[in-house]
Amino acid sequence: MAAQSLLIAGEWRAACESSECFRAVDPATGEAIGPAFPVSGESDLEAALASACAAAGELAAAPPSRIADFLDGYAQAIDEDAKTLVALAHAETALPAETRLAAVELPRTSRQLRLAAQAVRSFAWTQPVIDTTAGLRAHYAPLHKPVLIFGPNNFPLAFNAVAGSDFASAIAARNPVIAKAHPSHPATSQRLAELAHRALLQAGLPAASVQLLYHFSQHLGLRLAGDARLGAIGFTGSRNGGLALKAAADRAGIPAYMEMSSVNPVFLLPGALAERGAALAQEFFTSCTMGSGQFCTNPGLVVVPDDAAGDAFVTAAIGLFNAAPPGVLFSRGVLEQLDQAVTALRDWGATCLAGGTSAGPGYRYRPTLLQVSARAFLKHPAKLQREAFGPASLLVRTRDADEMLALAASLEGNLTGTLYGATDGSDDGMANLARVLRPRVGRLVANRMPTGVAVSAAMNHGGPYPSTSHPGFTAVGMPAAIRRFTALHCYDNVADALLPPELRDRNPGGVARQVDGHWRNDDLDPGRSAAP
Amino acid sequence: MAAQSLLIAGEWRAACESSECFRAVDPATGEAIGPAFPVSGESDLEAALASACAAAGELAAAPPSRIADFLDGYAQAIDEDAKTLVALAHAETALPAETRLAAVELPRTSRQLRLAAQAVRSFAWTQPVIDTTAGLRAHYAPLHKPVLIFGPNNFPLAFNAVAGSDFASAIAARNPVIAKAHPSHPATSQRLAELAHRALLQAGLPAASVQLLYHFSQHLGLRLAGDARLGAIGFTGSRNGGLALKAAADRAGIPAYMEMSSVNPVFLLPGALAERGAALAQEFFTSCTMGSGQFCTNPGLVVVPDDAAGDAFVTAAIGLFNAAPPGVLFSRGVLEQLDQAVTALRDWGATCLAGGTSAGPGYRYRPTLLQVSARAFLKHPAKLQREAFGPASLLVRTRDADEMLALAASLEGNLTGTLYGATDGSDDGMANLARVLRPRVGRLVANRMPTGVAVSAAMNHGGPYPSTSHPGFTAVGMPAAIRRFTALHCYDNVADALLPPELRDRNPGGVARQVDGHWRNDDLDPGRSAAP
Repeated sequence: MAAQSLLIAGEWRAACESSECFRAVDPATGEAIGPAFPVSGESDLEAALASACAAAGELAAAPPSRIADFLDGYAQAIDEDAKTLVALAHAETALPAETRLAAVELPRTSRQLRLAAQAVRSFAWTQPVIDTTAGLRAHYAPLHKPVLIFGPNNFPLAFNAVAGSDFASAIAARNPVIAKAHPSHPATSQRLAELAHRALLQAGLPAASVQLLYHFSQHLGLRLAGDARLGAIGFTGSRNGGLALKAAADRAGIPAYMEMSSVNPVFLLPGALAERGAALAQEFFTSCTMGSGQFCTNPGLVVVPDDAAGDAFVTAAIGLFNAAPPGVLFSRGVLEQLDQAVTALRDWGATCLAGGTSAGPGYRYRPTLLQVSARAFLKHPAKLQREAFGPASLLVRTRDADEMLALAASLEGNLTGTLYGATDGSDDGMANLARVLRPRVGRLVANRMPTGVAVSAAMNHGGPYPSTSHPGFTAVGMPAAIRRFTALHCYDNVADALLPPELRDRNPGGVARQVDGHWRNDDLDPGRSAAP
Repeated sequence: MAAQSLLIAGEWRAACESSECFRAVDPATGEAIGPAFPVSGESDLEAALASACAAAGELAAAPPSRIADFLDGYAQAIDEDAKTLVALAHAETALPAETRLAAVELPRTSRQLRLAAQAVRSFAWTQPVIDTTAGLRAHYAPLHKPVLIFGPNNFPLAFNAVAGSDFASAIAARNPVIAKAHPSHPATSQRLAELAHRALLQAGLPAASVQLLYHFSQHLGLRLAGDARLGAIGFTGSRNGGLALKAAADRAGIPAYMEMSSVNPVFLLPGALAERGAALAQEFFTSCTMGSGQFCTNPGLVVVPDDAAGDAFVTAAIGLFNAAPPGVLFSRGVLEQLDQAVTALRDWGATCLAGGTSAGPGYRYRPTLLQVSARAFLKHPAKLQREAFGPASLLVRTRDADEMLALAASLEGNLTGTLYGATDGSDDGMANLARVLRPRVGRLVANRMPTGVAVSAAMNHGGPYPSTSHPGFTAVGMPAAIRRFTALHCYDNVADALLPPELRDRNPGGVARQVDGHWRNDDLDPGRSAAP
């Protein structure tokens, strides 16, 4: 059986020199499914990079409306192809077809693309600033170089390298994308790339603006990530993988936006437990086991007072975890990593209250609750905040408010941090905890689980190192996510005709611009412009 | 003679274990001047870092008005102390006291601090975004960690680690600063730190918010730059130094904003030369030799057509360069580096048209013009775009418009790129050149020299790697420069009382905020807020 084609330089073509293939696996059975996909060699990577570089200038100069048309057209195509996409993604990931993929993730994917299109039409991501006295105009602009995107295993649609938030962001900023699919869902990625490719041609954009590779060796990946022809890297995945790629990119001066791991600490304050402990146990259980716990924002560390109300919460949680069926994980690799993490947490002093073992058929793992005292945790905080990616959480039992604060202070950078307090605000520890937790997390959440990541201009799906590689950027939310893939460009005394549209005197689109310190969306009085 | 004190933990104290001292040197004579300053050892660095970390939380929580008061108070103190500061800086750098230091650089320094204060009062740098439907609010926030700033040799006031743009930016974002003075002007830095320290106490900010070290070994510097307790690094200086520090910071996940080297290519189009060649020669000469050419934005590479008008320009320039006295450089190191760079450019095929040698007394170098054909340049573009920091420039002679374009395409990342065309716009090569040059530079300049860097919201004093370490940030211009030293913080369903002022429902200061997609500066209807 010939391996499937790659999307390189605007056409579907066979891998250049692939001696190796792989197939997707149905995680529910462990059986290989679907066709064979190529593991790319050096020539494929070079061809993709060279084509992307060749397309970069033309794409950067393309009318923004055409970019927006592409994003909208692609969104439409995804919506229309929902049935096929959901079936493929379900087969390759075992994520629930109706509740998760069809009802949530697919609409989120097309909505994200449409919000990117909207940011393109409004020029919001470019943040134009004009100083008429100094004759200076600045905005965020395309990188004029390709963006390499590594998709994660856990969102086959909404974070897919060829359809997700990183993709939408990089394209919105008019940069070509080299998408590296996650090898656990190649057919889903292929289908998306087919839709993207068609939408691209319809919009009249350079054909090499979107390319797809399914898989390549770690060695080649590191070499590509350190190739100075790249403009930036977007990555969602494991800490080890992210740090290795970041190191390669750093050496070449390439901005690398890595969204790595996070235990997403949740603090349950005494008032909250006294008031609604049983409901919180249910809420926590749902959040921790949804999607078999395979969320970047999974509540992996829950801080619970070591008192009667805390005990009741834990007992209720144990009951829920024990009663639930094993969760299907994406791959043997995820299963093994989870098992290793659970073992390591036990080695460092945690006891297992529920689950803690795998289960057949396929890649199943029992919903797992671990527990450790805060005293023990604080002896080895680095070891005990290791991410256990999957339906697992470590409960840390604190004796008093001070220990809760010490716990918070021991945390490294996380995507989220969550506080549950009494609804009447009587948990006076909230403010202190918020103060300690705030600089350690990207998103501070109150009284709801962190799992949901709304696509909103006010979202931050990011956080301090090592949850991500830079504390100033978000991977979700338009237009902020676009800014990762831009360069700041200033025009000094440059004639109007040579300026990009959003910096010209005339502003027919009513773009919001900062002019001499004020937000305006009107034309600039030509007399105020310094350049001839 | 006991060495001067360091500013650590809010007090002037002796260096802990200094076995080594150094003195400033008058560059005009090469003689040591002023008192002895300590080279810090490990204990000083640790004391400064520990104190800064201890102050970080309090500073982040300080009322912004107090930060603004400090910045304004410090600006006022600098203005009042102008005479002393100018005298010290002149003695240590040999920069002209009246024309440069008193009339330009000192006022720029205090103005920069005041513009930072203004950005603090308006909250402009925080860019608040509110999504009332999703219950999300986000803004840029302090890092809650110290910022380490390395000052350069070439702006003893306006880029001083304890007074310049990096300093103002880091403090505006409420981060403690550990300032590493440039060892070529320790007394100037000490005097500034004294003023800063007093202003700090007057404003009631934590005393360890501003600390000063004069010097330490490269080894200790790299260790400090890689200490995970740091929030960020600001650096202006040489490429070698910047890259070494960046590598250390990268490994620890610390954002490092390095402003390194740049040759600032200038393209003289045929129409411009035909129209005003003699005036351009004067303009170029002035820009290249001002401050003895020791500007990040010095025109170090000038592309000149190889025709009669080009020859006339070159002849005029040679006359000006030959007639000018040798320029005084900041240090023996700068002199040696310049001489090495000039030698290297000659080794790679450039011929010397003027200058090219040092001259006594002190650290003087003759204004230097080198020339090479575009054909020769394009054989070794990396070697021939080496920065020669000082009053030196390489002229590249092109035979036609295509060679000019090829030249532009061979350039690595630069802070600036400049095009001179005919004033009537008849140089039709402008648009093509602008297109090729645009992605390679941070600031595209037309018809004026790039040397001046206006302090403006629309400035970009930044550029693609390797001119800086990240293409998305500027080191000059408020509020954009502040954004380097911030973290993106999101609040999800968090009660109003726990929000920072600029994200609360009530907006008594009239802060400009993006609310549900619209810029507004009024109160939020409490009914629209999702949190209780």
